[in-house]
Amino acid sequence: MIEPYSDEFFMQQALKEAGKGIKSEEVPVGAVIVAKNQIIARAHNLTELLNDVTAHAEMQAITAAAESLGGKYLVKCTLYVTLEPCVMCAGALNWSQISKIVYGATDERRGAGRYDKIYHPKTEVIGGILEDECKQLIQEFFRSKR
Amino acid sequence: MIEPYSDEFFMQQALKEAGKGIKSEEVPVGAVIVAKNQIIARAHNLTELLNDVTAHAEMQAITAAAESLGGKYLVKCTLYVTLEPCVMCAGALNWSQISKIVYGATDERRGAGRYDKIYHPKTEVIGGILEDECKQLIQEFFRSKR
Repeated sequence: MIEPYSDEFFMQQALKEAGKGIKSEEVPVGAVIVAKNQIIARAHNLTELLNDVTAHAEMQAITAAAESLGGKYLVKCTLYVTLEPCVMCAGALNWSQISKIVYGATDERRGAGRYDKIYHPKTEVIGGILEDECKQLIQEFFRSKR
Repeated sequence: MIEPYSDEFFMQQALKEAGKGIKSEEVPVGAVIVAKNQIIARAHNLTELLNDVTAHAEMQAITAAAESLGGKYLVKCTLYVTLEPCVMCAGALNWSQISKIVYGATDERRGAGRYDKIYHPKTEVIGGILEDECKQLIQEFFRSKR
């Protein structure tokens, strides 16, 4: 059983989001942003639907969370995302000054982790939460496309 | 005199965009995207108005250009932007596979140029076009804020 309000609990919510785009051929990546144990934003990848390379789950979650909070900085918020953020999303998260980033699967090819000092110095970054489920979702998607 | 359709010509257009946000307290950065000598997208920084750290001029220009072309890849397009792209924008431009990036002033603090291999390997990147005008616009803005 997963403990309520744990990292695993919120990652499960991100996983639920990730699945929403699969039928529309979106790479299944989902994200939620949490403030004081409340989910203030939910998003999934929409690059296909919107025909827009910038429409990653994280980018939309950042925009939605800022809208929800009425301010553009996400200090004291945590992002949960099923796949490690890319350089674009890491850059956006840096500008947002978000306190914590929790990701599921590592992205060996496009993950921002391969760059030094790309996240905000005050942002804590944790990977590998529900890693197997997050990885499996992506792998099955790409397997089905072959 | 500036030659029509030269890098300087299009950078002047980006400079015109940059000025549009000054009255609303936006950091003055402007961008245009050009395909076959036609401007297909114009944008300026809107982070204050939209309360959104992702609303940089380049991000909005990428979204608008993709909308204009009906496809998300900007191969054979050139971005002109008055300030060197940050990491977020460089990451987005990488995903877009844009052919060429031309910027005006270097951003010593937040420019993506300090990272190795952050742009798409097929993207040509040129800096320093109308550098003095681009730099002056930003410097005057920050001076007036003090």
